[in-house]
Amino acid sequence: MQISEFQSIVGSNGILVGEDVSSRSERIWTDETVQASAIVRPRDTQELSEVLRLCHERDQPIVVHGGLTGLVDGAQTKRSDIVVSTELMNEIESIDPIARTMTVQAGVKLQQIQELAESNRLLFPLDLGARGSCSIGGNIATNAGGNRVIRYGMTRDMVLGLEVVLADGTIVSSMNDMIKNNAGYDLKHMFIGTEGSLGVITRAVLRLRELPLTDEAVFMSVDEFSMLPKILKHMDQKLGGTLTSFEVMWNDYYSHVCGNGEAHQPPLPTTHPYYVLIEAWGGDSRNDHARMEAAVESVYEAKLISDAAIAQNSVQRNAFWAIRDNVEKCMTIKPTFVFDVSLRIGDMEDYVVEVNRRLTEQFGTYRIFTFGHLGDGNLHFAINTGTDPAHQHPVERCVYEPLRAINGSISAEHGIGLEKKEYLDISRNEIEVGLMRTLKKSLDPKGILNPGKIFEFNG
Amino acid sequence: MQISEFQSIVGSNGILVGEDVSSRSERIWTDETVQASAIVRPRDTQELSEVLRLCHERDQPIVVHGGLTGLVDGAQTKRSDIVVSTELMNEIESIDPIARTMTVQAGVKLQQIQELAESNRLLFPLDLGARGSCSIGGNIATNAGGNRVIRYGMTRDMVLGLEVVLADGTIVSSMNDMIKNNAGYDLKHMFIGTEGSLGVITRAVLRLRELPLTDEAVFMSVDEFSMLPKILKHMDQKLGGTLTSFEVMWNDYYSHVCGNGEAHQPPLPTTHPYYVLIEAWGGDSRNDHARMEAAVESVYEAKLISDAAIAQNSVQRNAFWAIRDNVEKCMTIKPTFVFDVSLRIGDMEDYVVEVNRRLTEQFGTYRIFTFGHLGDGNLHFAINTGTDPAHQHPVERCVYEPLRAINGSISAEHGIGLEKKEYLDISRNEIEVGLMRTLKKSLDPKGILNPGKIFEFNG
Repeated sequence: MQISEFQSIVGSNGILVGEDVSSRSERIWTDETVQASAIVRPRDTQELSEVLRLCHERDQPIVVHGGLTGLVDGAQTKRSDIVVSTELMNEIESIDPIARTMTVQAGVKLQQIQELAESNRLLFPLDLGARGSCSIGGNIATNAGGNRVIRYGMTRDMVLGLEVVLADGTIVSSMNDMIKNNAGYDLKHMFIGTEGSLGVITRAVLRLRELPLTDEAVFMSVDEFSMLPKILKHMDQKLGGTLTSFEVMWNDYYSHVCGNGEAHQPPLPTTHPYYVLIEAWGGDSRNDHARMEAAVESVYEAKLISDAAIAQNSVQRNAFWAIRDNVEKCMTIKPTFVFDVSLRIGDMEDYVVEVNRRLTEQFGTYRIFTFGHLGDGNLHFAINTGTDPAHQHPVERCVYEPLRAINGSISAEHGIGLEKKEYLDISRNEIEVGLMRTLKKSLDPKGILNPGKIFEFNG
Repeated sequence: MQISEFQSIVGSNGILVGEDVSSRSERIWTDETVQASAIVRPRDTQELSEVLRLCHERDQPIVVHGGLTGLVDGAQTKRSDIVVSTELMNEIESIDPIARTMTVQAGVKLQQIQELAESNRLLFPLDLGARGSCSIGGNIATNAGGNRVIRYGMTRDMVLGLEVVLADGTIVSSMNDMIKNNAGYDLKHMFIGTEGSLGVITRAVLRLRELPLTDEAVFMSVDEFSMLPKILKHMDQKLGGTLTSFEVMWNDYYSHVCGNGEAHQPPLPTTHPYYVLIEAWGGDSRNDHARMEAAVESVYEAKLISDAAIAQNSVQRNAFWAIRDNVEKCMTIKPTFVFDVSLRIGDMEDYVVEVNRRLTEQFGTYRIFTFGHLGDGNLHFAINTGTDPAHQHPVERCVYEPLRAINGSISAEHGIGLEKKEYLDISRNEIEVGLMRTLKKSLDPKGILNPGKIFEFNG
């Protein structure tokens, strides 16, 4: 189809072609650039609807672009695709501090939402490293996770209402702003986490929480894996509703990030097999620090941890988090392959051993850095086997194949996109994928929305 | 079709006909009995699948029966229907105290789940009055709410994985047991809260929480509605993650339930316009009571409440809850019409005035009892306008019509069923209902599952 056909909808400023397209990076952490023939930038839902209606008529495949911070090639394009970008739909429409909701357009950056909430003494709990560049539309389309899932859930749990444009241009406005609404099907769940394959998210009503008044963090060293789920249970119970994060680093990660000569001062010696970073947010400025101290004391007396450092102020707390967040320190050798898997905590110790066994068998020497949101059963690896990018697939097989027997997930929070598509059968059976296709067929029969992502679909 | 055809699937013990059917009550709080021609009782998912396959072949409509505690006629049957009951699929299959999950069959009673969790020092947070008779399959199919939604969410938020049988007998086993799993579409949301219209829930993986160590409750009197959202915010912040319930009773409810000569001792004088019951569950036995006292003191100092009684022990706490739970005291005159609506807290004061204005205009004298889960924006009414059952529709219109202008919901937690079907357009636009029909058509093209419920569908 002719790109000029979009001009009557979005105006000439709304269309990018040529170098304006090909100079754009396809996603973070890559040198690949956008391949699509054009980027169309609607200014509002109505324009976006008209763009989709036209694409639908012409069987024109489209890929929606938000902040491009996804890690599974979910926004990758081909020459035959058109990009629909939400970058001009970037207004926060309203905030209601009494109802504790915010209404936003899809292109708004996560950090803007966090900041506006905070300036109203409220919290939008979603947080991830890409906060400054990711868009809320992308967060919703991929059901983003992050560091606070154990307390506040995934993005899905923070969305009350959605406005979505279907493949044929139909605008579904389901902008519920209530916590409870059982009036018929809760349609938003069709679009949250389905990676732009069933509709294009244009606006959302977000649920906000009260801003915590206290913030306590502790760093612990642990000598046996079997202690970790016990520590989680112990601290979760003692901290009674305030536990916000439960992060674990294996020694391979911790000693690499805070070893000799590294920027980070290790809060505890680098000789232990496991390290836990716990954070709790509360409302009792007088007693919450003492409560954390008592909880740590009791977990120590129960002989579940070998040592602990409790942050005495925000500088120390930030230093703890800087260690956990310095994943890029594990990615200095190229290519480093990064993983995001999910499994029962009871299977985790054996699973990590098995991944390492397979890597050893296949590559002999390699580097692996192991860490994750253990409170959610979510494990990350950064793996380097040398400089050969062709190692990607064999490494992926070492990580993903052992998940099959233990019903683990190849994607805890990153999604499937293109990168994990060939492994989807490890985590989903044929009937589940069949049902996904049934839904795709009913909402996007021509398969124009984010074609080829998650699973094969031929209309 | 011949009932005997089911015999080869479920055995003769698996089929009820005649008086065994017609003597069953259709739901709680009614004299109506089951009209269906037979009740088929599969013993497992395989049998249920074969029953559905047969029904699908013969265009035989079916209605699934769980504990029959729904309040919107969602389980009502006609003579031409067959009931598929989950009553023989009533086993708790396993509990994993480390992963904090439980795997159950659809027919298990909620209370059994609560008790097994508790005996493992864990909590299944869903709780409602019908706990002893409602089935978890029904709780999931209707996305049940209850008293602890503000802390733990609706049933949807407590389900990790589901097994479902589709209309044609296909078994979709999506028994995820992880908190995070973004490997493709999260299919369970298609079946949670869709009232048995898209598939039959047969098994589920439930998420459990740590059992709280402390339980604090306070009863407050409030002199102006505008204070209520401020009290909610204040207490939610001060109680930092431990707030479990925020219930409000209007004077019409409170003074009726604890007025002169009533069974309940009023914790506070019956002269105030509003009463709040707050509960908080924590993990710090030493300090949680003091924290509640400090929070109450500060909300009093902020002049948001006029008086407060803090429970000093479980006897007092139970007495507070007995007042809130004595809804049946408001239902002694027949018929009493009970409502479950949802709206922004900021709209609530005017809305309640408007409902009363319409009732006065229409009926002159009437009794109304007003209460609800205000922390979730969920309001209940029990309304009596005399003894004429024909008043039901006019009363419904007084309650539902004012919701249209303020985008409220005609169903916060009860669902739509048959009872609210004619009002669905108040809370859902045509395009939303159209999308519901699209999904129905793709999963149950013949319309054999719970026909006629929620919206009209003619296959």
